[in-house]
Amino acid sequence: MFKKISTLSLLLLLPSIALAGDELPTIASNADAIGLVQDHANYMWTLIAAALVFFMQAGFAMVESGFTRAKSAVNIMMKNLMDFSMGSLFFWAIGFGVMFGAAPTGWFGTDGFFLSGWTPGGDPWVLAFWMFQCVFAATAATIVSGAMAERTKFTGYLIYSAVLCAFIYPVFGSWAWGSLLNGGGWLEGMGFIDFAGSTVVHSIGGWAALAGAIVLGPRLGKYGKKGEVRAIPGHNIPMAAIGVFILWLGWFGFNPGSTTTADKSIAIIFVNTNLSAAAGAVAAMFTSWLIFKKPDIGMSLNGALAGLVGITAGCANVSPSSSIVIGLLSGILVVISVMAIDRAHIDDPVGAVSVHGVCGAWGTIAAGLFNMEGVTIKIMTTQFIGVGAAFVWSFGCAFILFKLISMTIGLRVTEEEEIMGVDISEHGAHAYNDFVVTR
Amino acid sequence: MFKKISTLSLLLLLPSIALAGDELPTIASNADAIGLVQDHANYMWTLIAAALVFFMQAGFAMVESGFTRAKSAVNIMMKNLMDFSMGSLFFWAIGFGVMFGAAPTGWFGTDGFFLSGWTPGGDPWVLAFWMFQCVFAATAATIVSGAMAERTKFTGYLIYSAVLCAFIYPVFGSWAWGSLLNGGGWLEGMGFIDFAGSTVVHSIGGWAALAGAIVLGPRLGKYGKKGEVRAIPGHNIPMAAIGVFILWLGWFGFNPGSTTTADKSIAIIFVNTNLSAAAGAVAAMFTSWLIFKKPDIGMSLNGALAGLVGITAGCANVSPSSSIVIGLLSGILVVISVMAIDRAHIDDPVGAVSVHGVCGAWGTIAAGLFNMEGVTIKIMTTQFIGVGAAFVWSFGCAFILFKLISMTIGLRVTEEEEIMGVDISEHGAHAYNDFVVTR
Amino acid sequence: MFKKISTLSLLLLLPSIALAGDELPTIASNADAIGLVQDHANYMWTLIAAALVFFMQAGFAMVESGFTRAKSAVNIMMKNLMDFSMGSLFFWAIGFGVMFGAAPTGWFGTDGFFLSGWTPGGDPWVLAFWMFQCVFAATAATIVSGAMAERTKFTGYLIYSAVLCAFIYPVFGSWAWGSLLNGGGWLEGMGFIDFAGSTVVHSIGGWAALAGAIVLGPRLGKYGKKGEVRAIPGHNIPMAAIGVFILWLGWFGFNPGSTTTADKSIAIIFVNTNLSAAAGAVAAMFTSWLIFKKPDIGMSLNGALAGLVGITAGCANVSPSSSIVIGLLSGILVVISVMAIDRAHIDDPVGAVSVHGVCGAWGTIAAGLFNMEGVTIKIMTTQFIGVGAAFVWSFGCAFILFKLISMTIGLRVTEEEEIMGVDISEHGAHAYNDFVVTR
Repeated sequence: MFKKISTLSLLLLLPSIALAGDELPTIASNADAIGLVQDHANYMWTLIAAALVFFMQAGFAMVESGFTRAKSAVNIMMKNLMDFSMGSLFFWAIGFGVMFGAAPTGWFGTDGFFLSGWTPGGDPWVLAFWMFQCVFAATAATIVSGAMAERTKFTGYLIYSAVLCAFIYPVFGSWAWGSLLNGGGWLEGMGFIDFAGSTVVHSIGGWAALAGAIVLGPRLGKYGKKGEVRAIPGHNIPMAAIGVFILWLGWFGFNPGSTTTADKSIAIIFVNTNLSAAAGAVAAMFTSWLIFKKPDIGMSLNGALAGLVGITAGCANVSPSSSIVIGLLSGILVVISVMAIDRAHIDDPVGAVSVHGVCGAWGTIAAGLFNMEGVTIKIMTTQFIGVGAAFVWSFGCAFILFKLISMTIGLRVTEEEEIMGVDISEHGAHAYNDFVVTR
Repeated sequence: MFKKISTLSLLLLLPSIALAGDELPTIASNADAIGLVQDHANYMWTLIAAALVFFMQAGFAMVESGFTRAKSAVNIMMKNLMDFSMGSLFFWAIGFGVMFGAAPTGWFGTDGFFLSGWTPGGDPWVLAFWMFQCVFAATAATIVSGAMAERTKFTGYLIYSAVLCAFIYPVFGSWAWGSLLNGGGWLEGMGFIDFAGSTVVHSIGGWAALAGAIVLGPRLGKYGKKGEVRAIPGHNIPMAAIGVFILWLGWFGFNPGSTTTADKSIAIIFVNTNLSAAAGAVAAMFTSWLIFKKPDIGMSLNGALAGLVGITAGCANVSPSSSIVIGLLSGILVVISVMAIDRAHIDDPVGAVSVHGVCGAWGTIAAGLFNMEGVTIKIMTTQFIGVGAAFVWSFGCAFILFKLISMTIGLRVTEEEEIMGVDISEHGAHAYNDFVVTR
Repeated sequence: MFKKISTLSLLLLLPSIALAGDELPTIASNADAIGLVQDHANYMWTLIAAALVFFMQAGFAMVESGFTRAKSAVNIMMKNLMDFSMGSLFFWAIGFGVMFGAAPTGWFGTDGFFLSGWTPGGDPWVLAFWMFQCVFAATAATIVSGAMAERTKFTGYLIYSAVLCAFIYPVFGSWAWGSLLNGGGWLEGMGFIDFAGSTVVHSIGGWAALAGAIVLGPRLGKYGKKGEVRAIPGHNIPMAAIGVFILWLGWFGFNPGSTTTADKSIAIIFVNTNLSAAAGAVAAMFTSWLIFKKPDIGMSLNGALAGLVGITAGCANVSPSSSIVIGLLSGILVVISVMAIDRAHIDDPVGAVSVHGVCGAWGTIAAGLFNMEGVTIKIMTTQFIGVGAAFVWSFGCAFILFKLISMTIGLRVTEEEEIMGVDISEHGAHAYNDFVVTR
């Protein structure tokens, strides 16, 4: 028996990788093998980070649904599921090539569609890199969902989501992060600092969300006849809170994963990400406490997200102390912005424009201001140009797109459908069948 | 003070690993050290993947509970907790030895029980490998839970769960993945392709679920006196949706983790897993839209799972484009299968048989059909033999087991207990004490 | 076209790390490079583990909220968000220096505040290490939250949380884990075994929770006029269950991450952690079945947590079989302890004192008893001293602190506020706006 047992460990030998082959190792073969092990670490890191960023989809779904009404929860889950599912397919077919393909015109890539940059036997790094970029594209798409909640036609939303993943996001992405063969995207060439996408991902999503909210108009009953603002409280605050925790977790993939390399630089990115989020939550809580006389849960949760968005551009080039300052200002800014947008009678049920658009812009400016290696007028000019370009491009494209959808197949459900809820009108389903639901 | 501070970093020195010891490094010692660092990466990867697969238990619990009634939610949480808890203990005591121990008869292992393959000072890889295999075994067990929801005696379920983790799953596992010392399991020896377990895990679970649903019979009121099918909608769709996101995340451990090695091959597995899931969700949505005139949330969610199950066998040997085809067909298949099983008056409240059994079989066939290195009649024959053997073994064993339980301690609760709900009858608890719950 | 496509992979070259620079590699440069790759693995491992531990905050929020009433859910989310957010800031400003700074008096550190141990260009390991320690500190703080649920003033809680992260936890931490420059903390110097913090984190949190529950007194209506104990069931059992799954997942970062090194020792820590949790759940279920005649969900869930807390001290120095014994006893112990504390009319709504305080103490003793390298009277004496010191320090400090808060700004809400719920009184919000909520 004992002998038998001892064989077990033979069965389970750790899979060995031929690092040096059968021949005796040499200095050169060792050096190659070291490079290969580091490559393996880079694959592992990039893909684990991609998995964490994927999970942010669940976080977005929970935040958006928790902050809106029970009668829209099925629709929100469908939108998020399809954001990511259709987004993955469109980013595979088109978006990745637009963002990272060779760009003869200098404005967007024109090859690498359908993952044709990889063929069997080819370099698997293309696949790992695609995976990480794919979850980023889907994040940009899903940001919009919240601002358009409770009143959007599902078909209209599907079209929008596909266009964002295939075109709006990747084109801007190519300016800031892609198309290296042509001397780099034009923003990249200017030295634009946006390490993990305060602008590239969050502002692009946030400004498209703004366009969507404007074209759609507010939910019925949100603003009274005399212009007064009426609160429409969310139906499940604990769900929204868990969603924020999931997003925070996912950001530990989003920011440090943007190295796509397992090296020591991930440490400061982790710390900065965490401190800015913490500072954002604390600042938003105290700001809301001052204004509303009570510490507000919705503002505090959005404050954490604001801090995360705010540090995304500068997470790799500012100090931990600066990241706290960035987070604090993000947390204050998000409260002010949410109130201002509401007063402008733009109905953004979850605060997506403030969190992602406004704090994304602020974070991009802050990445210049707090640059550890010093700030120059040139740096700041470039940061402002990037922020401005993102607004013009994303708001512009999305506004035209939503107008087109609105004029053709229609963007908004009917008044009747909105009153009964998009869950029933668009999907024929209730979210909470066994519960007594009001409103 | 400054001097004091500078000492802090001394305190926090990165733990150093004696890669080369005190002596001067040599080419040979460097080669050994490189192998050791790669080993460390393999441990890290396998165990992080195991953690992600573990988390699928939460996903299963949420999907199952979300798709059923509020009066069964406590019971479902208990079943999932115990699936994993008792499953871990039984896989430790028995299952692991059956699956990976030396197999003198060629049919199942007969040593390595109680983790006796490892003793203090022994090779820790046995432990890492056990951990990864343990979370797989528990996944197979938990699949069954959904098909038997809302009407099963808790004691009967516990017995079933233990037998699956200790015997049904590991025996089949030894055929396909284990018992190398005896020339490999018989399916493995034939060249059976099932990289991460479309058949080994999902079909085994799915066919056992079918047996359970048949032996139990449908829930009260599910089928009318004239044979009409009545929908019993789930009580918490957002919970089910988040469960699907968690499962999708977990699959990024399930499939690429099955390398148990940190190498470059994990990239294509990630991409294939993601594309198939995305395609499955999209295909199921459009299929349901065609049939029901509205895009259905339940079908779309199951479509994502179908795509995940479908790519599990072939994730390492098909191309990304093929994985999209596999996912699309999985998504269509799951809708048809759910409807067909319902028409056959087999009450599977969550669609577990269709998702895991049917799409597991399809995925295993697809892994042959879309094999990047080409397909032969021999390959396809082997794939069909594997699929067939899984059905005969799992459905057969489970059917006998459930009949035995049914005839002895009883498998189904009484009519009264079912009407009041298994939460109260089996656990003396309500899931939602502060809410007004109907039904 | 084909040529263009082939350029794509050039664009996406894996970021290369200068492992050997431009010069030809030598044996010495290879040895250095191997050390560097291992360092990268250590960073990756420590930071991924930190992310998992961070996610435990979501688990704690769900467990605590699920086990209490709907009218307190907003407050619980706020407390957990602020535990972590304010905790991060206070641990950055003060706690980390107290725990790991140079300790001239031998009792606590006096430098390294505001992360001053790291300056731009300095060793990034300080940052990675800080990140991992920060999530630990916040865990200790959040444990207390549950025991004080449904009746605590939010401002009082904030103060407490800050003091724990800045002072109570780090001082004890410096005794057991920190302040190496002065010959190690005094407990560490005695050979105290507490690998991942059964005592350092969980008992410190648990005993502070006990002090909080005592100073606050029980919730209104919890104990009748004749002293009878009344159950106040939780409002969302599935949420509590998912919280436990999340905590279990997080513990796969908490325990094996405490190596802060990617090496083979993480395998046994994973296995022990999992087996003890499983055994704890099973033991608590059967214990509750014996006592209450039904398998109780609350006890079973707490049993899993008890097993996790119980193995935290000894996860690296006991065998897998021992970890099952430790888990089984933890599971039995937690049921008995919960009942005993309730009979003592100490109202701990979620069982935090039993899970973290009592099972933390048991786990620390067990780490000595089941030590794979043998147990001596000296070892056991040290373990008991550590357990005792933790109780005296944490209960003592927290008791004084809560009394001080109680006598100044007030610790408990008014009777009216408690009846309407702390969500409304403290935050002006309901958790579930669209649902009909009773109680």
